[in-house]
Amino acid sequence: MNEGLRPLLAPESVAIIGASTDFSRIGGMLVKYLLKFGYKGRVYPVNPKYEEIASLRCYPSVAALPEKADTALVAVPEKFILDTITDCARAGVKSAIVYSAGFAETGEEGKAKQEKLSRIIKEAGMKVCGPNCIGIINFRQNAAMSFSGFMEADRLVPGNIGFVSQSGALGGTILSRAQDRNIGFSHFVSTGNEAELDLVDFMDFMVDDPETTVIMAYVEGIRDPAKFAALSRRALEKGKPIVVLKVGETESGKRVAASHTGSLTGSDSAYSAAFRQHGVVRVEDYDDLIETAMLFSKSKLPRGNRIGILTSSGGGAIILADKFTKHGMALPDLTDSTKQQLSQKIVSFATIGNPMDLTGQLYSEPEIFKRVIELFARDENIDIVMTVISMVPKERARARATWIIEAAQAIDKPFVTWWAAGSLSEPGMALLDESQVPLFKSPERCVKALKSMVEYLGFRDRLLTSGQAASAPETAERDRARGILQASPVLTEHQAKQLLACYGIPITQEEVAKSAEQAAEIAARIGRPVALKVSSPQIAHKTEAGGIRLNISGKAAVPGAYNDIMTASRRYAPQADIEGVLVQEMAGEGTEVIVGVARDATFGPMIMFGLGGIMVEVLKDVSLRPLPITRRDAVEMLAEIKGSPILKGVRGRPPADTETIIDILLKISSLVADLGDDIAEIDLNPIIVFEQGKGARVVDALVIKKGA
Amino acid sequence: MNEGLRPLLAPESVAIIGASTDFSRIGGMLVKYLLKFGYKGRVYPVNPKYEEIASLRCYPSVAALPEKADTALVAVPEKFILDTITDCARAGVKSAIVYSAGFAETGEEGKAKQEKLSRIIKEAGMKVCGPNCIGIINFRQNAAMSFSGFMEADRLVPGNIGFVSQSGALGGTILSRAQDRNIGFSHFVSTGNEAELDLVDFMDFMVDDPETTVIMAYVEGIRDPAKFAALSRRALEKGKPIVVLKVGETESGKRVAASHTGSLTGSDSAYSAAFRQHGVVRVEDYDDLIETAMLFSKSKLPRGNRIGILTSSGGGAIILADKFTKHGMALPDLTDSTKQQLSQKIVSFATIGNPMDLTGQLYSEPEIFKRVIELFARDENIDIVMTVISMVPKERARARATWIIEAAQAIDKPFVTWWAAGSLSEPGMALLDESQVPLFKSPERCVKALKSMVEYLGFRDRLLTSGQAASAPETAERDRARGILQASPVLTEHQAKQLLACYGIPITQEEVAKSAEQAAEIAARIGRPVALKVSSPQIAHKTEAGGIRLNISGKAAVPGAYNDIMTASRRYAPQADIEGVLVQEMAGEGTEVIVGVARDATFGPMIMFGLGGIMVEVLKDVSLRPLPITRRDAVEMLAEIKGSPILKGVRGRPPADTETIIDILLKISSLVADLGDDIAEIDLNPIIVFEQGKGARVVDALVIKKGA
Repeated sequence: MNEGLRPLLAPESVAIIGASTDFSRIGGMLVKYLLKFGYKGRVYPVNPKYEEIASLRCYPSVAALPEKADTALVAVPEKFILDTITDCARAGVKSAIVYSAGFAETGEEGKAKQEKLSRIIKEAGMKVCGPNCIGIINFRQNAAMSFSGFMEADRLVPGNIGFVSQSGALGGTILSRAQDRNIGFSHFVSTGNEAELDLVDFMDFMVDDPETTVIMAYVEGIRDPAKFAALSRRALEKGKPIVVLKVGETESGKRVAASHTGSLTGSDSAYSAAFRQHGVVRVEDYDDLIETAMLFSKSKLPRGNRIGILTSSGGGAIILADKFTKHGMALPDLTDSTKQQLSQKIVSFATIGNPMDLTGQLYSEPEIFKRVIELFARDENIDIVMTVISMVPKERARARATWIIEAAQAIDKPFVTWWAAGSLSEPGMALLDESQVPLFKSPERCVKALKSMVEYLGFRDRLLTSGQAASAPETAERDRARGILQASPVLTEHQAKQLLACYGIPITQEEVAKSAEQAAEIAARIGRPVALKVSSPQIAHKTEAGGIRLNISGKAAVPGAYNDIMTASRRYAPQADIEGVLVQEMAGEGTEVIVGVARDATFGPMIMFGLGGIMVEVLKDVSLRPLPITRRDAVEMLAEIKGSPILKGVRGRPPADTETIIDILLKISSLVADLGDDIAEIDLNPIIVFEQGKGARVVDALVIKKGA
Repeated sequence: MNEGLRPLLAPESVAIIGASTDFSRIGGMLVKYLLKFGYKGRVYPVNPKYEEIASLRCYPSVAALPEKADTALVAVPEKFILDTITDCARAGVKSAIVYSAGFAETGEEGKAKQEKLSRIIKEAGMKVCGPNCIGIINFRQNAAMSFSGFMEADRLVPGNIGFVSQSGALGGTILSRAQDRNIGFSHFVSTGNEAELDLVDFMDFMVDDPETTVIMAYVEGIRDPAKFAALSRRALEKGKPIVVLKVGETESGKRVAASHTGSLTGSDSAYSAAFRQHGVVRVEDYDDLIETAMLFSKSKLPRGNRIGILTSSGGGAIILADKFTKHGMALPDLTDSTKQQLSQKIVSFATIGNPMDLTGQLYSEPEIFKRVIELFARDENIDIVMTVISMVPKERARARATWIIEAAQAIDKPFVTWWAAGSLSEPGMALLDESQVPLFKSPERCVKALKSMVEYLGFRDRLLTSGQAASAPETAERDRARGILQASPVLTEHQAKQLLACYGIPITQEEVAKSAEQAAEIAARIGRPVALKVSSPQIAHKTEAGGIRLNISGKAAVPGAYNDIMTASRRYAPQADIEGVLVQEMAGEGTEVIVGVARDATFGPMIMFGLGGIMVEVLKDVSLRPLPITRRDAVEMLAEIKGSPILKGVRGRPPADTETIIDILLKISSLVADLGDDIAEIDLNPIIVFEQGKGARVVDALVIKKGA
């Protein structure tokens, strides 16, 4: 556990440096809010100008405090920050929150200031949140160490969600919306510019914090993906879901993110891939963050994705059925046993089924209502039970909510409610918000949150069955691979393939011919139609150079093609160092796929898989994962492209040898693990994959070295 | 105008048949609510049991009323409905609302009852809403002719949105949510089982109703697509947007819809296509319906899709930028002139751009805030201005809202606000809700509503430029086409193509050979490689029958192929009537596309366009329209498939002759207009489209006659 953060996140004593009697200033607000919410620790205002602030004794300096405060809230102007941190360190204060703006977010000068701040923090050995943040709240201690507008709330609702936000303003708004729904928190942290502590450090604390069972984060960028990966793994092992709203999805969004925080927002699809790989739930929308975290914090996990719906409104059931189906959830039939019991227990005119429309009349009978819910919950086809409530006003809404809560207590499966009405039903909705029954007001958000929960089930399952990575090849082969890579600054296609071959990746049978005669000999050895390609480190665009001839067979044709290629290539690139012509087997008929590796600014080497041709080039239908990957990653990559059915065989073609593709992905992962430091990019395009059991051939390959 | 509905939707006098002193019964609720909201017309309770109800004189029968009431609210049990309608008709009552359930929604018996009810209504010449509905509300007259739980609201907010709902329960919930936001209505209609008047009849009234400027509908199914098309056209011409939530999107949803209303829910993609064609805005989600209608009712239309964003929260701007980009909206740069003026008018440290982060400080300066909004609104790159407000609590929220309202009044472009906070900002949000400034609490809904508005711009534009349909061919050609279609019960490929040729659709050069020699002669005439295909009305699967040979050339090869095909086909289908072998040119290289026609249960013949191969078969990447179509429809169909870039040329291929595809689509539309009554299905698969200017050839064609 990141115990070092305890003084910051759960302080027993707080010094307010720059405390003020003016409650419109940060130094005043901090005093005001700590007192207003009844902070359970000790508060020490520090300001040489005052004897007392709000009946608290005020100290002239941090050195004068009666104890070494757990944390210092630094509410002084930016120019005094560095000295203040030094003073705090000298006085033995363990941690600090720096609120002031004017650092990296303002440009070059600010960046330099922030670097200096980072150095001083490190030298002092303190734990510091900020600068340019709105602070930290501990909801169990009522430690309101923030000047957010949210602090104008009447109360702090304690709960089990830990919330870390890279936006101060949105952190406050999200808290405000969540508390409207009685959704409680353990901690809130606004990370600001992250001069020292970052998003992941705070999340890491929460993974071990017994008060936190769900971690929620607003994310603009992650600095250290390895730390994030380790944190996510620990959270998954501990069964604490991480729910993330990652913004900066689009180019346009990214531009704003960069100018806003100075943090480098990585490519968004890399984030998505990393979240999937590490078992982190990513939500799409602002309010989804709150409601998905709410669902996780209130509900047990279901065993699967099968929903049973009880409704009094046909329309409500249709809307839900649409959305569940769209999001890949199931609305199964009830078992015969449930149907039979339903027909015995309830009056005959309701149609038994799923969704089941109890009609307004039956919905108003608490005993029938509860009995039906119980029968749904007992049905082995159903994993999650939900009710739809429509236009039930005022007191009737309260009664309805009471039955729902009672019914929920009697069953042992997840049970959620979508309530379609507005404030006329507020008395009932408020009761649910105070209960352990997850309430949704939007059907879309309800379905998406449940889908996230089912996704998380998959993550948990994956934790147990993630499968092995590829086994590394023998040392001799690895040395040979390293030798190939280091031998020349630019690898030819043939060299690239030799490198792949060291890792057991299947390549075309091929040799480089230095003469027309040799080309003919090689072709004869191959014994099938061949392709001829000019081999030169300086000629990257072989087709353009006239350096490619395909499907050549026959004794006479090969030398002719050799000579044509040499002539054309010399004309195209007179200075090029041409080592000859690569003679390779034509791979034959199969499914074209592409496997590539490229470096993401945040996550480093990422592996890409897609189908050849328009599927990648026009439809951008690819799957990504940060490297290294496990077998389970590889299997998921094949399944998640839209063109996935093509691999199973369409238009009369047999299924492709997917095992070989998985094997190639794992071997590339192993290759990058060994040699990745020297490799900028890999492109196996195309790989021809034969039918099931018959393997594949890498037909063309490009390995670009770093700095090349 | 559908003036006949005026007595129902804007009654000056109302009879309540089955009025009751028990306010928990429908007959009592109707009296209670009409009085509670202060209905402006005359109310006549009818019930022989009472002299007086709630101080109103009660009449023994409808015949005893002092005037011919505009409408009768029929609150009697289902078994008395038919007699009551007859009585009302005799007494000269012009219209009625029938609330009772127990009709078509209950099964066969109920259906029969409802048919009887329909007959009686028709004979009586009355206008009747229902049965099985929750009634009608006229918000201008406070005519609360409904027993919805929504009637427990404190007031009816009048406005300019007309709302028709095919769900009673959700109608009430939607009203409740809308009124929470001070969104006002002209009328609300719950259509129930639509024994006589249907959804479209009520919408039609609203198109002409001067109090209604936006029409909003919850739709489960449309009965008469032609009437809907005409209505939509009129609404578009009058500039009244129609915003629709159509449910039953998925198979699962459809199943529920069918069991719920007995109305046949058509294929959902046909609905989407029809909405696009007729200029109807379809929303995706429950709350989108309310908020999109709100936006249309409050805002002027923008000129384009370019957004200018002012924010005090970087995070808020990123979220919006993400969503606008995802939904195809633009965040353009400001003009130099705007930038220059901004740098003169506001203090230097705000970064000038779009989105523009004014920071909390500058956001708090009303004059700067308003001035910046004005400059954004004047910028010719910007069509829509929006602000993001984050965590501004209580009184400060009220002040902020006031400036926003003042700023909005000073500019002449659409101006919307996303407010990210919760109820702490309610004082400000409520002010906006009472103003003409559209307020959104969800960024996703905000962006989607603006996108709908831009989509509507396109619909309006399209009204002016929808372009011509294909001109019909000469009479002689049409007669010839009809002759081909009627000559035989099943059309062979060659006959199908001859039919297409009558409409000027380019087909392969081809003839049917009755002998091997004739096949050779035809091939020689064609003068290029040919395909040979068995021609028999009984052999549909030619490949399976061994009845196809492709790419045959040379004198010897053609007769050989002919004989092979005849032998194989006779073996495959000994009973088949084989008229010979179709000898057709090989069309050559080009882009494969598919054009088809199929009948939708609701919308009748629909035309389909897609790219050949996996794009249709695996990715289901097609575009649909109800027939007939105009040129603009055809152009949009080509553009809206995901594979559209392929038509423009990829992987070194030249652009395809899209003009010819458009022409074929229009000619198929013309063909179906003439002959559609006899045609069940058309399948041109594939059409080979050559490069720009070089036309296309229908290579294979199937025309299936109705009943075949």
